[in-house]
Parts: sequence; structure tokens; C-alpha cells
Amino acid sequence: MFVHTVFFWLKEKDNDEARQALHEGLKELATIAEIQTAYVGTPASTRRPVIDHTYDFSITFIFPDKATQDIYQDHPDHHKFIDACSSLWDRVQVYDAVS
Amino acid sequence: MFVHTVFFWLKEKDNDEARQALHEGLKELATIAEIQTAYVGTPASTRRPVIDHTYDFSITFIFPDKATQDIYQDHPDHHKFIDACSSLWDRVQVYDAVS
Repeated sequence: MFVHTVFFWLKEKDNDEARQALHEGLKELATIAEIQTAYVGTPASTRRPVIDHTYDFSITFIFPDKATQDIYQDHPDHHKFIDACSSLWDRVQVYDAVS
Repeated sequence: MFVHTVFFWLKEKDNDEARQALHEGLKELATIAEIQTAYVGTPASTRRPVIDHTYDFSITFIFPDKATQDIYQDHPDHHKFIDACSSLWDRVQVYDAVS
């Protein structure tokens, strides 16, 4: 399995319109057929020193393998999402894992 | 859903015994009954500037809700894992998300 995890930090944390636009964009992104299981999340209420809860949105997309994730990376709807939403975030942090 | 993601950086990256001990510990940890779906991973071969591939192991544990994750956090087998393995890592980074 290939676990693709991304955390997004909004450029304007107090801009509700931007927040909603990124959320909608991520929910639309999660419908790309190559994704086996998709979780679009926001920080939980847990607080411990080792927890980073400063991000605004997270995605955890599960793919059967790297080849399928590669198709997703180059999917027109993925590029459409980046074009539409990349101006909304200040930072993204990606972790890719195989298990 | 509650998505609990943790990245582990080994103290001794070249110590195969330590690496195997942490891997075994994580695989055992993943069997705790409260976890709905568990992924124990290592960095994928993907390389882009936004990807952090410096960690040694990752876990992505899916729980139905925060209450179930709280039970896991205090599970004797979780404490056992921390007691047995915490000396092996230099750093852990946790992200908790609700979706």
C-alpha cells in the first residue's frame, strides 16, 4: 500500500472564504478514482508536545501502490486542484510511505 | 473518523538491530484491537521539495472516533511499546486529524 499524507497551512487563517474554498477543493480532489480510501481532515482536539496541530487541513489518501499514486499525481483533476487552490496555502508538507 | 499519524526518526540510523526492533514493535502495536485500519510504513521513493522522506518509520492508524483513540493511547500494549521502544527513537512527530 502507498500512504500519501499532506498537511496544508492556509495563507489567511481568518479568511473563512479561503478556508471553505480549500476544504471544497480537497473534498473534490478526494473523489479521484485512483484513490482507494480518502480522509480529508482538520486538526483533532488532542494536545501533547509531540503533536503538531498548527495545520488547517490534512489529506490521507491510500493507493494500492506507487504506480497508482503516480497516475493520481498527474491526473488532470489533481492539476486543476493545484491551479485553483495553491494560492490559498502558505505551506504544504507531504509524507509518502509504503507499507 | 480519527486519523492518527506518527513519524519516527531512529536515534541510530545505521543500527540494523534497532531498526528491526522498532519495526517489530510497530507491527505489534498495530494489532491493538481498537485500531480500525493500520498502516506501518517506511519512506516511499518519491522525491519532491515538499516531501519529507527523512523519517525511518510511519504509522497511520484509523479509529472510528476520538474516544476510541483515547482508549488506544492508554492501552497497556501501547504503554508496553513505548517502554520497550522509546529509547530507539530520536524524534517522533504526531498529527491527529478528524474527518
